[in-house]
Amino acid sequence: MKMITFASQKQTLFMKPSKNIPVPVLRRMPSYLSFVKTLQKQGEKFVSSTRIAEYMEIDSTQVTKDLSHTGLSGKTRVGYEVDSFVSVLEDFLGFSRIDNAFLVGAGSLGCALLQDKGLSAFGLQIEAAFDTDKSKIGTKVNDIEIFHIDQFRMMAQERHVVIGIITVPAEYAQNVADLMVAWGIKAIWNFTPARIKVPSHIVVQNTTIYMNLAILFNKLYHQE
Amino acid sequence: MKMITFASQKQTLFMKPSKNIPVPVLRRMPSYLSFVKTLQKQGEKFVSSTRIAEYMEIDSTQVTKDLSHTGLSGKTRVGYEVDSFVSVLEDFLGFSRIDNAFLVGAGSLGCALLQDKGLSAFGLQIEAAFDTDKSKIGTKVNDIEIFHIDQFRMMAQERHVVIGIITVPAEYAQNVADLMVAWGIKAIWNFTPARIKVPSHIVVQNTTIYMNLAILFNKLYHQE
Repeated sequence: MKMITFASQKQTLFMKPSKNIPVPVLRRMPSYLSFVKTLQKQGEKFVSSTRIAEYMEIDSTQVTKDLSHTGLSGKTRVGYEVDSFVSVLEDFLGFSRIDNAFLVGAGSLGCALLQDKGLSAFGLQIEAAFDTDKSKIGTKVNDIEIFHIDQFRMMAQERHVVIGIITVPAEYAQNVADLMVAWGIKAIWNFTPARIKVPSHIVVQNTTIYMNLAILFNKLYHQE
Repeated sequence: MKMITFASQKQTLFMKPSKNIPVPVLRRMPSYLSFVKTLQKQGEKFVSSTRIAEYMEIDSTQVTKDLSHTGLSGKTRVGYEVDSFVSVLEDFLGFSRIDNAFLVGAGSLGCALLQDKGLSAFGLQIEAAFDTDKSKIGTKVNDIEIFHIDQFRMMAQERHVVIGIITVPAEYAQNVADLMVAWGIKAIWNFTPARIKVPSHIVVQNTTIYMNLAILFNKLYHQE
Protein backbone atom coordinates (compact mmCIF):
# COMPACT_ATOMS: atom_id res chain seq x y z
CA MET A 1 0.00 0.00 0.00
CA LYS A 2 2.83 2.35 0.84
CA MET A 3 4.34 1.80 -2.59
CA ILE A 4 1.11 2.86 -4.26
CA THR A 5 0.85 5.96 -2.13
CA PHE A 6 4.30 7.17 -2.86
CA ALA A 7 4.11 6.23 -6.53
CA SER A 8 1.16 8.58 -6.93
CA GLN A 9 2.77 11.28 -4.78
CA LYS A 10 5.91 10.96 -6.83
CA GLN A 11 4.03 11.85 -9.96
CA THR A 12 2.78 15.05 -8.43
CA LEU A 13 6.14 15.95 -7.01
CA PHE A 14 8.64 14.86 -9.53
CA MET A 15 7.00 15.15 -12.93
CA LYS A 16 8.84 18.39 -13.47
CA PRO A 17 11.19 19.49 -16.23
CA SER A 18 14.07 19.46 -13.78
CA LYS A 19 14.95 15.85 -13.16
CA ASN A 20 18.36 15.09 -11.78
CA ILE A 21 19.01 17.92 -9.39
CA PRO A 22 22.72 18.73 -9.00
CA VAL A 23 24.13 17.46 -5.72
CA PRO A 24 25.40 20.90 -4.55
CA VAL A 25 21.82 22.19 -4.86
CA LEU A 26 20.52 19.23 -2.85
CA ARG A 27 23.17 19.94 -0.23
CA ARG A 28 22.03 23.54 0.19
CA MET A 29 18.30 22.87 0.24
CA PRO A 30 18.07 21.25 3.69
CA SER A 31 19.71 24.40 5.09
CA TYR A 32 17.20 26.64 3.30
CA LEU A 33 14.45 24.47 4.72
CA SER A 34 15.90 24.55 8.22
CA PHE A 35 16.19 28.36 8.15
CA VAL A 36 12.67 28.91 6.86
CA LYS A 37 11.23 26.44 9.40
CA THR A 38 12.85 28.52 12.13
CA LEU A 39 11.19 31.64 10.71
CA GLN A 40 7.90 29.74 10.56
CA LYS A 41 8.17 28.91 14.26
CA GLN A 42 8.79 32.59 14.94
CA GLY A 43 5.51 33.39 13.19
CA GLU A 44 6.96 35.02 10.06
CA LYS A 45 4.83 34.84 6.91
CA PHE A 46 7.23 35.71 4.07
CA VAL A 47 10.92 35.34 3.34
CA SER A 48 12.92 36.90 0.51
CA SER A 49 15.68 35.18 -1.46
CA THR A 50 17.99 37.97 -0.26
CA ARG A 51 17.38 37.03 3.36
CA ILE A 52 18.01 33.35 2.68
CA ALA A 53 21.15 34.33 0.74
CA GLU A 54 22.46 36.38 3.68
CA TYR A 55 21.85 33.48 6.04
CA MET A 56 23.65 31.09 3.70
CA GLU A 57 26.38 33.61 2.83
CA ILE A 58 25.86 33.02 -0.88
CA ASP A 59 24.53 35.11 -3.76
CA SER A 60 20.77 35.63 -3.91
CA THR A 61 20.66 34.66 -7.60
CA GLN A 62 21.97 31.25 -6.51
CA VAL A 63 19.07 30.92 -4.07
CA THR A 64 16.51 31.87 -6.71
CA LYS A 65 18.06 29.47 -9.20
CA ASP A 66 18.15 26.59 -6.69
CA LEU A 67 14.55 27.14 -5.68
CA SER A 68 13.37 27.27 -9.29
CA HIS A 69 13.99 23.50 -9.40
CA THR A 70 11.19 23.02 -6.89
CA GLY A 71 8.62 25.01 -8.82
CA LEU A 72 8.35 27.52 -5.97
CA SER A 73 7.98 31.11 -7.05
CA GLY A 74 8.27 34.18 -4.89
CA LYS A 75 6.04 37.23 -5.00
CA THR A 76 7.51 40.60 -5.94
CA ARG A 77 8.69 42.54 -2.91
CA VAL A 78 7.49 40.05 -0.25
CA GLY A 79 9.27 36.91 -1.44
CA TYR A 80 8.26 33.34 -0.73
CA GLU A 81 5.31 32.45 1.43
CA VAL A 82 6.81 30.68 4.46
CA ASP A 83 4.23 27.90 4.91
CA SER A 84 4.23 26.83 1.28
CA PHE A 85 8.03 27.11 1.17
CA VAL A 86 8.28 24.56 3.97
CA SER A 87 5.76 22.12 2.52
CA VAL A 88 7.08 22.35 -1.05
CA LEU A 89 10.69 21.81 0.06
CA GLU A 90 9.79 18.93 2.36
CA ASP A 91 7.94 17.26 -0.51
CA PHE A 92 10.68 18.04 -2.99
CA LEU A 93 13.44 16.63 -0.80
CA GLY A 94 11.41 13.50 -0.10
CA PHE A 95 11.11 14.25 3.62
CA SER A 96 7.30 14.32 3.78
CA ARG A 97 6.84 10.80 2.46
CA ILE A 98 8.00 7.87 4.56
CA ASP A 99 10.24 5.33 2.84
CA ASN A 100 11.02 2.10 4.61
CA ALA A 101 14.55 0.78 4.92
CA PHE A 102 16.37 -2.28 6.25
CA LEU A 103 19.64 -1.89 8.10
CA VAL A 104 22.39 -4.52 8.03
CA GLY A 105 24.96 -4.51 10.83
CA ALA A 106 23.57 -3.98 14.32
CA GLY A 107 26.90 -2.99 15.82
CA SER A 108 27.70 0.28 17.50
CA LEU A 109 27.04 2.59 14.54
CA GLY A 110 24.05 0.53 13.39
CA CYS A 111 22.42 0.71 16.81
CA ALA A 112 23.16 4.42 16.96
CA LEU A 113 21.19 4.89 13.75
CA LEU A 114 18.37 2.72 15.07
CA GLN A 115 18.23 5.03 18.10
CA ASP A 116 17.91 8.17 16.03
CA LYS A 117 14.21 9.01 15.89
CA GLY A 118 15.12 12.03 13.76
CA LEU A 119 15.45 9.95 10.62
CA SER A 120 11.73 9.40 10.33
CA ALA A 121 11.15 13.16 10.41
CA PHE A 122 13.22 13.21 7.23
CA GLY A 123 11.25 10.47 5.55
CA LEU A 124 13.17 7.34 6.45
CA GLN A 125 11.77 4.64 8.68
CA ILE A 126 14.09 1.78 9.56
CA GLU A 127 11.69 -1.16 9.63
CA ALA A 128 14.07 -3.91 10.67
CA ALA A 129 17.74 -4.58 11.36
CA PHE A 130 19.80 -7.61 10.41
CA ASP A 131 22.94 -9.20 11.75
CA THR A 132 24.61 -12.61 11.96
CA ASP A 133 25.45 -12.41 15.68
CA LYS A 134 23.11 -14.88 17.38
CA SER A 135 23.18 -12.98 20.66
CA LYS A 136 21.59 -9.96 18.94
CA ILE A 137 18.91 -11.75 16.96
CA GLY A 138 15.44 -11.34 18.41
CA THR A 139 16.45 -8.35 20.51
CA LYS A 140 15.14 -4.84 19.85
CA VAL A 141 16.72 -1.41 19.71
CA ASN A 142 14.29 1.50 19.93
CA ASP A 143 11.49 -1.02 19.18
CA ILE A 144 13.18 -2.14 15.95
CA GLU A 145 13.75 -5.88 15.89
CA ILE A 146 17.05 -7.46 14.85
CA PHE A 147 16.66 -10.46 12.53
CA HIS A 148 19.12 -12.96 11.07
CA ILE A 149 20.46 -11.79 7.72
CA ASP A 150 18.97 -14.92 6.10
CA GLN A 151 15.51 -13.42 6.55
CA PHE A 152 16.39 -10.23 4.65
CA ARG A 153 15.36 -11.39 1.17
CA MET A 154 11.94 -12.67 2.09
CA MET A 155 11.10 -9.76 4.38
CA ALA A 156 12.24 -7.19 1.81
CA GLN A 157 9.95 -8.73 -0.78
CA GLU A 158 7.00 -8.97 1.60
CA ARG A 159 7.35 -5.40 2.77
CA HIS A 160 8.44 -3.88 -0.58
CA VAL A 161 11.57 -2.43 0.98
CA VAL A 162 13.97 -1.01 -1.62
CA ILE A 163 16.39 0.96 0.59
CA GLY A 164 19.24 -0.80 2.40
CA ILE A 165 21.55 0.73 5.00
CA ILE A 166 25.02 -0.76 5.49
CA THR A 167 26.65 -0.38 8.91
CA VAL A 168 28.82 -3.50 9.00
CA PRO A 169 32.63 -3.35 9.41
CA ALA A 170 34.18 -1.98 6.20
CA GLU A 171 35.64 -5.31 5.10
CA TYR A 172 32.16 -6.86 4.83
CA ALA A 173 30.52 -3.93 3.06
CA GLN A 174 30.96 -5.25 -0.50
CA ASN A 175 29.54 -8.65 0.44
CA VAL A 176 26.50 -7.08 2.03
CA ALA A 177 26.02 -4.76 -0.96
CA ASP A 178 26.14 -7.74 -3.36
CA LEU A 179 23.51 -9.56 -1.32
CA MET A 180 21.30 -6.48 -1.11
CA VAL A 181 21.38 -6.06 -4.89
CA ALA A 182 20.57 -9.75 -5.38
CA TRP A 183 17.70 -9.36 -2.94
CA GLY A 184 16.06 -6.48 -4.80
CA ILE A 185 17.39 -3.40 -3.03
CA LYS A 186 17.45 -0.34 -5.31
CA ALA A 187 19.24 2.21 -3.13
CA ILE A 188 22.07 1.65 -0.67
CA TRP A 189 23.04 4.07 2.07
CA ASN A 190 26.62 3.07 2.86
CA PHE A 191 27.94 4.25 6.22
CA THR A 192 31.26 2.42 5.91
CA PRO A 193 34.44 3.98 4.47
CA ALA A 194 34.58 1.09 1.95
CA ARG A 195 33.86 1.91 -1.69
CA ILE A 196 31.21 -0.53 -2.82
CA LYS A 197 30.74 -1.62 -6.42
CA VAL A 198 27.19 -2.18 -7.65
CA PRO A 199 25.41 -2.29 -11.03
CA SER A 200 24.82 1.15 -12.53
CA HIS A 201 21.06 1.14 -11.92
CA ILE A 202 21.58 0.88 -8.14
CA VAL A 203 21.78 4.14 -6.21
CA VAL A 204 24.58 4.44 -3.67
CA GLN A 205 24.93 7.22 -1.14
CA ASN A 206 28.11 7.17 0.93
CA THR A 207 28.04 8.80 4.35
CA THR A 208 31.23 8.37 6.28
CA ILE A 209 30.71 10.27 9.49
CA TYR A 210 34.31 9.59 10.48
CA MET A 211 35.63 11.18 7.27
CA ASN A 212 34.31 14.44 8.61
CA LEU A 213 36.48 13.95 11.65
CA ALA A 214 39.62 13.77 9.47
CA ILE A 215 38.63 17.09 7.92
CA LEU A 216 37.88 18.67 11.30
CA PHE A 217 41.18 17.48 12.82
CA ASN A 218 43.12 18.74 9.83
CA LYS A 219 41.56 22.18 10.00
CA LEU A 220 41.98 22.36 13.77
CA TYR A 221 45.66 21.47 13.81
CA HIS A 222 46.68 23.48 10.78
CA GLN A 223 45.05 26.76 11.54
CA GLU A 224 46.94 27.52 14.73
CA MET B 1 48.54 16.72 30.07
CA LYS B 2 46.63 15.60 27.01
CA MET B 3 47.25 18.97 25.39
CA ILE B 4 50.98 18.57 25.87
CA THR B 5 50.93 15.08 24.43
CA PHE B 6 49.15 16.03 21.32
CA ALA B 7 51.10 19.24 20.88
CA SER B 8 54.30 17.23 20.76
CA GLN B 9 52.79 14.55 18.54
CA LYS B 10 51.52 17.23 16.25
CA GLN B 11 55.03 18.40 15.61
CA THR B 12 56.06 14.96 14.47
CA LEU B 13 52.99 14.46 12.38
CA PHE B 14 52.19 17.78 10.90
CA MET B 15 55.45 19.67 10.53
CA LYS B 16 55.44 18.88 6.86
CA PRO B 17 55.63 21.16 3.82
CA SER B 18 52.01 20.33 3.01
CA LYS B 19 49.83 22.16 5.50
CA ASN B 20 46.20 22.62 4.61
CA ILE B 21 45.32 19.41 2.84
CA PRO B 22 42.55 19.88 0.24
CA VAL B 23 39.22 18.55 1.44
CA PRO B 24 38.74 16.14 -1.53
CA VAL B 25 42.05 14.50 -0.58
CA LEU B 26 40.90 14.19 3.03
CA ARG B 27 37.66 12.65 1.82
CA ARG B 28 39.47 9.96 -0.15
CA MET B 29 42.04 9.07 2.49
CA PRO B 30 39.72 7.26 4.93
CA SER B 31 38.73 4.98 2.04
CA TYR B 32 42.39 4.27 1.20
CA LEU B 33 42.94 3.49 4.85
CA SER B 34 39.89 1.25 5.07
CA PHE B 35 40.97 -0.70 1.98
CA VAL B 36 44.55 -1.19 3.15
CA LYS B 37 43.38 -2.23 6.63
CA THR B 38 41.29 -4.95 4.99
CA LEU B 39 44.39 -6.14 3.11
CA GLN B 40 46.33 -6.05 6.37
CA LYS B 41 43.75 -8.33 8.01
CA GLN B 42 44.14 -10.70 5.06
CA GLY B 43 47.85 -10.87 5.77
CA GLU B 44 49.07 -8.92 2.73
CA LYS B 45 52.39 -7.10 3.08
CA PHE B 46 52.48 -4.63 0.17
CA VAL B 47 49.98 -2.66 -1.85
CA SER B 48 50.58 -0.71 -5.07
CA SER B 49 49.05 2.66 -5.94
CA THR B 50 47.55 0.94 -9.00
CA ARG B 51 45.67 -1.49 -6.81
CA ILE B 52 44.35 1.29 -4.57
CA ALA B 53 43.39 3.23 -7.70
CA GLU B 54 41.41 0.30 -9.09
CA TYR B 55 39.57 -0.10 -5.81
CA MET B 56 38.75 3.61 -5.74
CA GLU B 57 38.01 3.77 -9.48
CA ILE B 58 40.30 6.75 -9.88
CA ASP B 59 43.64 7.34 -11.62
CA SER B 60 46.75 5.94 -9.92
CA THR B 61 48.59 9.27 -10.28
CA GLN B 62 45.86 10.76 -8.09
CA VAL B 63 46.55 8.14 -5.42
CA THR B 64 50.31 8.79 -5.52
CA LYS B 65 49.74 12.53 -5.35
CA ASP B 66 47.29 12.25 -2.44
CA LEU B 67 49.64 9.99 -0.49
CA SER B 68 52.61 12.29 -1.06
CA HIS B 69 50.95 14.68 1.43
CA THR B 70 51.49 12.11 4.17
CA GLY B 71 55.21 11.63 3.51
CA LEU B 72 54.61 7.96 2.63
CA SER B 73 56.68 6.68 -0.22
CA GLY B 74 56.26 3.40 -2.05
CA LYS B 75 59.03 1.09 -3.15
CA THR B 76 59.56 0.41 -6.86
CA ARG B 77 57.59 -2.60 -8.05
CA VAL B 78 56.16 -3.65 -4.64
CA GLY B 79 54.46 -0.42 -3.63
CA TYR B 80 53.62 0.70 -0.10
CA GLU B 81 54.35 -1.44 2.93
CA VAL B 82 50.91 -2.26 4.38
CA ASP B 83 51.70 -1.90 8.10
CA SER B 84 53.41 1.45 7.79
CA PHE B 85 50.68 2.63 5.38
CA VAL B 86 48.06 1.99 8.05
CA SER B 87 49.98 3.64 10.87
CA VAL B 88 51.08 6.67 8.83
CA LEU B 89 47.56 7.30 7.54
CA GLU B 90 45.98 6.85 10.96
CA ASP B 91 48.44 9.38 12.39
CA PHE B 92 48.02 11.74 9.46
CA LEU B 93 44.22 11.75 9.66
CA GLY B 94 44.34 12.27 13.42
CA PHE B 95 42.70 8.92 14.17
CA SER B 96 45.51 7.52 16.32
CA ARG B 97 45.45 10.34 18.85
CA ILE B 98 42.40 10.72 21.07
CA ASP B 99 40.85 14.19 21.20
CA ASN B 100 38.20 14.89 23.77
CA ALA B 101 34.93 16.55 22.87
CA PHE B 102 31.80 17.83 24.60
CA LEU B 103 28.41 17.29 23.02
CA VAL B 104 25.50 19.70 23.45
CA GLY B 105 21.98 18.40 22.85
CA ALA B 106 21.22 14.99 24.32
CA GLY B 107 18.19 14.39 22.14
CA SER B 108 17.71 11.55 19.74
CA LEU B 109 20.64 12.32 17.42
CA GLY B 110 22.88 13.35 20.31
CA CYS B 111 22.23 10.11 22.17
CA ALA B 112 22.80 8.16 18.96
CA LEU B 113 26.27 9.71 18.73
CA LEU B 114 26.93 8.98 22.40
CA GLN B 115 26.08 5.34 21.66
CA ASP B 116 28.53 5.06 18.81
CA LYS B 117 31.68 3.49 20.19
CA GLY B 118 33.20 3.73 16.71
CA LEU B 119 34.03 7.40 17.14
CA SER B 120 36.83 6.70 19.58
CA ALA B 121 38.46 4.35 17.05
CA PHE B 122 38.71 7.44 14.86
CA GLY B 123 40.25 9.60 17.55
CA LEU B 124 37.26 11.28 19.13
CA GLN B 125 36.16 10.61 22.67
CA ILE B 126 32.97 12.29 23.81
CA GLU B 127 33.78 13.10 27.43
CA ALA B 128 30.47 14.59 28.51
CA ALA B 129 27.10 15.66 27.16
CA PHE B 130 25.08 18.76 28.02
CA ASP B 131 21.42 19.65 27.87
CA THR B 132 18.91 21.92 29.57
CA ASP B 133 16.24 19.27 30.08
CA LYS B 134 16.23 18.56 33.83
CA SER B 135 14.94 15.01 33.36
CA LYS B 136 18.11 14.14 31.43
CA ILE B 137 20.67 15.76 33.71
CA GLY B 138 22.60 13.29 35.82
CA THR B 139 21.64 10.34 33.60
CA LYS B 140 24.16 8.48 31.47
CA VAL B 141 24.18 7.19 27.91
CA ASN B 142 26.85 4.60 27.14
CA ASP B 143 28.55 5.65 30.40
CA ILE B 144 28.76 9.30 29.32
CA GLU B 145 27.11 11.61 31.81
CA ILE B 146 24.69 14.37 30.83
CA PHE B 147 25.29 17.68 32.62
CA HIS B 148 23.45 20.99 32.68
CA ILE B 149 24.73 23.35 29.98
CA ASP B 150 25.72 25.82 32.71
CA GLN B 151 28.59 23.50 33.67
CA PHE B 152 30.06 23.48 30.15
CA ARG B 153 32.43 26.42 30.54
CA MET B 154 34.07 25.29 33.75
CA MET B 155 34.35 21.66 32.71
CA ALA B 156 35.80 22.57 29.29
CA GLN B 157 38.49 24.66 30.97
CA GLU B 158 39.29 22.01 33.56
CA ARG B 159 39.55 19.24 30.99
CA HIS B 160 41.12 21.32 28.17
CA VAL B 161 38.35 20.36 25.79
CA VAL B 162 38.47 22.35 22.53
CA ILE B 163 36.05 20.37 20.35
CA GLY B 164 32.30 20.89 20.65
CA ILE B 165 29.58 18.82 18.98
CA ILE B 166 26.19 20.42 18.31
CA THR B 167 23.15 18.13 18.16
CA VAL B 168 20.43 20.52 19.33
CA PRO B 169 17.38 21.38 17.19
CA ALA B 170 18.49 23.58 14.27
CA GLU B 171 16.91 26.76 15.64
CA TYR B 172 19.18 26.68 18.71
CA ALA B 173 22.39 25.85 16.85
CA GLN B 174 23.62 29.45 16.51
CA ASN B 175 23.05 30.15 20.20
CA VAL B 176 24.96 27.06 21.22
CA ALA B 177 27.78 27.90 18.79
CA ASP B 178 28.05 31.42 20.26
CA LEU B 179 28.28 30.00 23.76
CA MET B 180 30.86 27.41 22.74
CA VAL B 181 33.07 30.09 21.19
CA ALA B 182 32.75 32.25 24.31
CA TRP B 183 33.66 29.22 26.39
CA GLY B 184 36.91 28.49 24.55
CA ILE B 185 35.91 25.87 21.99
CA LYS B 186 38.17 25.94 18.91
CA ALA B 187 36.42 23.44 16.62
CA ILE B 188 32.70 22.82 16.22
CA TRP B 189 31.22 19.70 14.68
CA ASN B 190 27.74 20.83 13.67
CA PHE B 191 25.23 18.04 13.06
CA THR B 192 22.29 20.41 12.47
CA PRO B 193 21.22 21.69 9.05
CA ALA B 194 21.60 25.26 10.38
CA ARG B 195 24.48 27.34 9.03
CA ILE B 196 26.31 28.68 12.04
CA LYS B 197 28.34 31.88 12.00
CA VAL B 198 31.54 31.96 14.05
CA PRO B 199 34.75 34.02 14.10
CA SER B 200 37.18 33.04 11.33
CA HIS B 201 39.66 31.34 13.68
CA ILE B 202 37.06 28.79 14.76
CA VAL B 203 36.89 25.56 12.77
CA VAL B 204 33.42 24.37 11.74
CA GLN B 205 32.65 21.02 10.20
CA ASN B 206 29.05 20.52 9.10
CA THR B 207 27.71 16.97 8.96
CA THR B 208 24.07 16.78 8.07
CA ILE B 209 23.26 13.12 7.93
CA TYR B 210 19.76 13.92 6.72
CA MET B 211 21.10 15.92 3.76
CA ASN B 212 22.42 12.63 2.43
CA LEU B 213 18.88 11.33 2.53
CA ALA B 214 17.70 14.11 0.21
CA ILE B 215 20.41 13.12 -2.26
CA LEU B 216 19.57 9.42 -1.97
CA PHE B 217 15.83 10.00 -2.45
CA ASN B 218 16.47 12.23 -5.45
CA LYS B 219 18.69 9.65 -7.14
CA LEU B 220 16.29 6.82 -6.33
CA TYR B 221 13.20 8.48 -7.72
CA HIS B 222 14.80 10.00 -10.79
CA GLN B 223 16.69 7.06 -12.13
CA GLU B 224 13.73 4.81 -12.78
